[in-house]
Amino acid sequence: MKRIFDEVYGTIELDDASVNLIDLPEFQRLRRIRQTSLAYIVYPGATHTRFSHSLGTYYLTNKIGQRLVHEGIINQDELNVVKVASLIHDIGQFPFSHAIEAYYLKQGLGNKEVRDLLLRGSFGDSLSNYGFDPREISDIFSGSSLLTSIIDGDVDVDRMDYLVRDSTHTGIQLGRIDLDRLIFTIMYKEKGISVRDKGIISLENFYLSRLHMYQAVYYHKTILGYELFLTNLYSRLLEECESIEVKDVRETISNQTFPYWDDEWVFGSLYKCYRENPNSDFAERIKDFLDRRGPKVVFDEISYNEKDDSKFREATETLNRVIPEDFLYPYEESITIFDKSRISIISKEVEVTVDRYPTLLQSIPEKLVIRRIYVDRRFVDRAREFM
Amino acid sequence: MKRIFDEVYGTIELDDASVNLIDLPEFQRLRRIRQTSLAYIVYPGATHTRFSHSLGTYYLTNKIGQRLVHEGIINQDELNVVKVASLIHDIGQFPFSHAIEAYYLKQGLGNKEVRDLLLRGSFGDSLSNYGFDPREISDIFSGSSLLTSIIDGDVDVDRMDYLVRDSTHTGIQLGRIDLDRLIFTIMYKEKGISVRDKGIISLENFYLSRLHMYQAVYYHKTILGYELFLTNLYSRLLEECESIEVKDVRETISNQTFPYWDDEWVFGSLYKCYRENPNSDFAERIKDFLDRRGPKVVFDEISYNEKDDSKFREATETLNRVIPEDFLYPYEESITIFDKSRISIISKEVEVTVDRYPTLLQSIPEKLVIRRIYVDRRFVDRAREFM
Amino acid sequence: MKRIFDEVYGTIELDDASVNLIDLPEFQRLRRIRQTSLAYIVYPGATHTRFSHSLGTYYLTNKIGQRLVHEGIINQDELNVVKVASLIHDIGQFPFSHAIEAYYLKQGLGNKEVRDLLLRGSFGDSLSNYGFDPREISDIFSGSSLLTSIIDGDVDVDRMDYLVRDSTHTGIQLGRIDLDRLIFTIMYKEKGISVRDKGIISLENFYLSRLHMYQAVYYHKTILGYELFLTNLYSRLLEECESIEVKDVRETISNQTFPYWDDEWVFGSLYKCYRENPNSDFAERIKDFLDRRGPKVVFDEISYNEKDDSKFREATETLNRVIPEDFLYPYEESITIFDKSRISIISKEVEVTVDRYPTLLQSIPEKLVIRRIYVDRRFVDRAREFM
Amino acid sequence: MKRIFDEVYGTIELDDASVNLIDLPEFQRLRRIRQTSLAYIVYPGATHTRFSHSLGTYYLTNKIGQRLVHEGIINQDELNVVKVASLIHDIGQFPFSHAIEAYYLKQGLGNKEVRDLLLRGSFGDSLSNYGFDPREISDIFSGSSLLTSIIDGDVDVDRMDYLVRDSTHTGIQLGRIDLDRLIFTIMYKEKGISVRDKGIISLENFYLSRLHMYQAVYYHKTILGYELFLTNLYSRLLEECESIEVKDVRETISNQTFPYWDDEWVFGSLYKCYRENPNSDFAERIKDFLDRRGPKVVFDEISYNEKDDSKFREATETLNRVIPEDFLYPYEESITIFDKSRISIISKEVEVTVDRYPTLLQSIPEKLVIRRIYVDRRFVDRAREFM
Repeated sequence: MKRIFDEVYGTIELDDASVNLIDLPEFQRLRRIRQTSLAYIVYPGATHTRFSHSLGTYYLTNKIGQRLVHEGIINQDELNVVKVASLIHDIGQFPFSHAIEAYYLKQGLGNKEVRDLLLRGSFGDSLSNYGFDPREISDIFSGSSLLTSIIDGDVDVDRMDYLVRDSTHTGIQLGRIDLDRLIFTIMYKEKGISVRDKGIISLENFYLSRLHMYQAVYYHKTILGYELFLTNLYSRLLEECESIEVKDVRETISNQTFPYWDDEWVFGSLYKCYRENPNSDFAERIKDFLDRRGPKVVFDEISYNEKDDSKFREATETLNRVIPEDFLYPYEESITIFDKSRISIISKEVEVTVDRYPTLLQSIPEKLVIRRIYVDRRFVDRAREFM
Repeated sequence: MKRIFDEVYGTIELDDASVNLIDLPEFQRLRRIRQTSLAYIVYPGATHTRFSHSLGTYYLTNKIGQRLVHEGIINQDELNVVKVASLIHDIGQFPFSHAIEAYYLKQGLGNKEVRDLLLRGSFGDSLSNYGFDPREISDIFSGSSLLTSIIDGDVDVDRMDYLVRDSTHTGIQLGRIDLDRLIFTIMYKEKGISVRDKGIISLENFYLSRLHMYQAVYYHKTILGYELFLTNLYSRLLEECESIEVKDVRETISNQTFPYWDDEWVFGSLYKCYRENPNSDFAERIKDFLDRRGPKVVFDEISYNEKDDSKFREATETLNRVIPEDFLYPYEESITIFDKSRISIISKEVEVTVDRYPTLLQSIPEKLVIRRIYVDRRFVDRAREFM
Repeated sequence: MKRIFDEVYGTIELDDASVNLIDLPEFQRLRRIRQTSLAYIVYPGATHTRFSHSLGTYYLTNKIGQRLVHEGIINQDELNVVKVASLIHDIGQFPFSHAIEAYYLKQGLGNKEVRDLLLRGSFGDSLSNYGFDPREISDIFSGSSLLTSIIDGDVDVDRMDYLVRDSTHTGIQLGRIDLDRLIFTIMYKEKGISVRDKGIISLENFYLSRLHMYQAVYYHKTILGYELFLTNLYSRLLEECESIEVKDVRETISNQTFPYWDDEWVFGSLYKCYRENPNSDFAERIKDFLDRRGPKVVFDEISYNEKDDSKFREATETLNRVIPEDFLYPYEESITIFDKSRISIISKEVEVTVDRYPTLLQSIPEKLVIRRIYVDRRFVDRAREFM
Repeated sequence: MKRIFDEVYGTIELDDASVNLIDLPEFQRLRRIRQTSLAYIVYPGATHTRFSHSLGTYYLTNKIGQRLVHEGIINQDELNVVKVASLIHDIGQFPFSHAIEAYYLKQGLGNKEVRDLLLRGSFGDSLSNYGFDPREISDIFSGSSLLTSIIDGDVDVDRMDYLVRDSTHTGIQLGRIDLDRLIFTIMYKEKGISVRDKGIISLENFYLSRLHMYQAVYYHKTILGYELFLTNLYSRLLEECESIEVKDVRETISNQTFPYWDDEWVFGSLYKCYRENPNSDFAERIKDFLDRRGPKVVFDEISYNEKDDSKFREATETLNRVIPEDFLYPYEESITIFDKSRISIISKEVEVTVDRYPTLLQSIPEKLVIRRIYVDRRFVDRAREFM
């Protein structure tokens, strides 16, 4: 057993099996991938990593899991497996998470696919050596069992940890959730969750925190702009200086250099590329990124449903005509906040749907739709002229 | 004016002059230098940067400074200058701070010299453009005025901020200090500080926290081992792959690429070096570092005075004979905890020395002496054999 | 100036005028009135008092007020007056707040009336002696100026402080609000408030916290039961042992014994009454209260609108027939959460109504309606039989 | 099982046996005895009670105890008993703790004796009914076993809880201790404690926090003055209005009215006494107490050893001649901070004494001696004249 200091929970105890997994290079890599990508540009304290988030997720799984074992809902073996799954759930994350994943996703490779590749490769072998079946863990990730619900099921330990952790590091209170109460009133099912009426306000609070954190951090105007900028720089980087396409990612996994493909690698490569040709146009843009001269929003529309994207389309078309493609970043995303149909409430031993119980959940929007257009700083005036 | 979220103080307000300075690439660079170097290896949350520490130091300077202006001890102009000085006090820090500085210090280049070079170069020009006199600021750093005491005088804003900030991020309570009380009872003088009797326990607490943080974080057994390892790897890196000697550092300052010499650059360079020659002995050691297989302590001695280093010398000599130089890291450091002669206490309007007032300060050790010998993992058994 | 430690904000600085007011017996009395009445029965840490809440309210007024002075919206004199008003806003609170106020309200005497009586009596004279005009302060309380909005206008400093303070003391996270952001984005007007779009999520958060704190603390099932029990015991106490009717309250104010009519007085009187006749039926009920054998809920209905109270009425009528009046507490309350019409949002320099901006405020219920029936423990079975 | 919100630890889980004990009137009484007596006069947030402290102590016992069971040092039965003992350890506390206890201690009745009387009376019977042996618990309190060390052995759960809890409520950081680390590195023995070298700084921190809290809270100049004032008023109260001498306390226990002898009773009695004779000299002093016009310090001497009390004696004698006894409060107390001989350190599997290990414990003073003379406000000038 090992004890690790955690800035959120105080101390996290790791059992011996987990200590072994943590020592693997693929897990150590997570120390070099920031949890909230470029959010530190706006919230300087948000430099925490997928490593500490993974430990935190493990910690919560253990806490909820022990309750479920105690209540006879899962057994100790299942707890052990879901603990491992929660520990390694982010093993396939890309450098700078979604910003770089965006590049590969277009070609069908996302972090879940990478995780699967790792589980089927030497990382999976290590799991086997330590007595875990990589396929069983893979099944939790892809399945729809109760165990899946715990780590990837809306009100899951992954989200619980990151809401609290990201709140702590950004210094904003909005994301604080009532973890203690939630942990003891939530019940996982194969399809969705239920919550006892005592815990309903904790669940409301969870969804509201999430909604607020989307707005204050994950889709923050400035942060998102820098992430789009980085996605753009990355594709240029691959064209001009480095070559790490989908097949190369696969190769890093098989030749075990994957652990060194991380946030630092991206910065190191930008520096290298910058130095090799310091007077190029690309070098200038790298410098813009590093010196914090990111793109600006010229169109911004937030709504709670997907209807009517006409203004956005129109603006995009207009700007497409007057601004070079490489300097224009239209962005449209429909984020599911929550899915009422997957939640039920247990009141006086009876299970009812959200619609039949007086709760704020009824009025929380199910979707958050963000439509924005960013343009590079040097084209802001031009963009505004045409809008 | 700008408002920045801070994970320690909630919000930090920046005046317009500071906003300008923060936007300079030399300051943005601090976002990419971790405040506590490799401490995150033991405390995963300790990934915060010199950037947020610099903002925090500025915040405290403003808080104490406003009190001093109110009390007629300094004037508004002095406050403005010392605010700028505190904001940029870490501008000359090396990548991974002391770990890399150690390499250059042998050749006479430390972070204060780099700061001076920056102030005399284009960064200084920018200060001038924004209405500040770089020489005046330089004088605060090198001088011994009351203003110097505020930012570099033992119980200074620099240390106040990092004790609290590093406590928050490591999750350990030991470093928490009673900032509020300290800020309102401390008095800066040209040589040292005085404190009103009401505040004496806050001052005791400050020194005790510092002593504890030295042991729990700054000179933590494992963390220090990794830092010595990194210093060693860095000199090897410069021999084999990169060339950035003292004269090159000076050049980065004059050609303005200094802002891109940071933690990420070091990692990026190690990756590059590793890939160029993946089967070399050096590559293997880089991998050890990244995968967290650092050196081990075989000799450990902590004391509160410098006397009697015979055991340490003896052990070093013995090991020198049986372990290759590159795999052996003897370490000896005498850290000044505090200097009684610089502190006085104001009780009933009379100023007395520490010895004449019943306070724990009398019994806090003035020095902490650390003597350790680390060896590379593959030589641990051999080292133990001979000791 | 005086500095007081505060468990929420760290330190509160009081100017000399406030120090004088705090030293008055009428203000010291607030040390002996718990902020959240009987909430400590469920949340043992909630023993904090109106005294610390009053200081906290003063602190926030000063913080917001300085901003408003800086922005030229109010002047320093107005700030001074509103600071005093916020400091003394709770001066007229009854022992155990609403639980005892309920008794006198039926006869037209509430805490606002008592506050007014105090301002017109010797407490007002003290204000005059310290240079404040009691009538001016009275006007702020009763008026509808911008100053009124600050301390009693929905998103006011009173509520901000108690949400944060009550959260801290109950140990529940739900009430935490993003104070820093709210304080800098809210704008007070004569009728209501407006908020800049940057601050909209803080405002949403404020209302949601409030809604949650109503459910988790202020109208918590058990707590409310004990408060109704206490109201009932109090009227019995006045019948049997003490005599302090409306005219007596007025007299305590004129003879200056009002400062000793507080929570402790109520307990002391119950003890006295209990001892004088320890075998009476009333003594038994006092003992029930002290030993925590409170009433039980037999009917519970929460909704977001006032429609359809038929079930509640019917149940009340039924129980009225079978349970003695003294042992039955039907409770119906319609709480206004917020009034959309008083809020506007400033986006891109244009002021719009809540309905025209995508915000959760649109879907937060405007009312919370609580309908409950409590019965004394010894009649629970009988009540359940008839329902 | 029951879950209680705690403002320090978040949630405390109580097993069924404990829930029963908590429901007893003798335990509910602790809700009405403030943990830090009159400290709230200086720290307005310090209104927390022996009730929440008792729950917190139980929580820590359970945490440490589970570790000890896991390590095979105690068994589950012992854990169950020590949990009960820690829950009820403060059951015999007097109203306002030491302030009122001081009155009875002169006649040989302290809180431990009262606890014993309760255990031998009907409270003990209740314990028996719930399956616990009151004598076994009594033995833990009076004995010197390992179990005794846990709840009353210097670095015990009682002190751990109150340091952290009192820190939280006073808003001062000084008392924060590194609980997590301490809990996992401390080892209880029959006589004293030992600690692993890893935990030594947590132990240093514990003692230093304690020393600081003695100065900042428990023996704070103003607070102590009010406590001496209250002790004085109390003896006067018993002379003039109420009669509750040692034999009466014993009677409250046998007739089961003891649960209603608490802080509120003291205030209630003072009010009653005040009203019965509002123009008496005693009434005036009661009013002084309630309106916060306490005694003033005219002599103040703090030292780390007991030697040389000549100045204190001399001053006391002088003042005795010129100030009426009832208005003069000389105070002398020698507080043991820690006893080196009871502590050992385990380093590399060897147990050594504090003197043989480099630790701050060597230089922490073993005693804190406080000598003060307070006089009633109306005699301050006279006292100063003669000193």
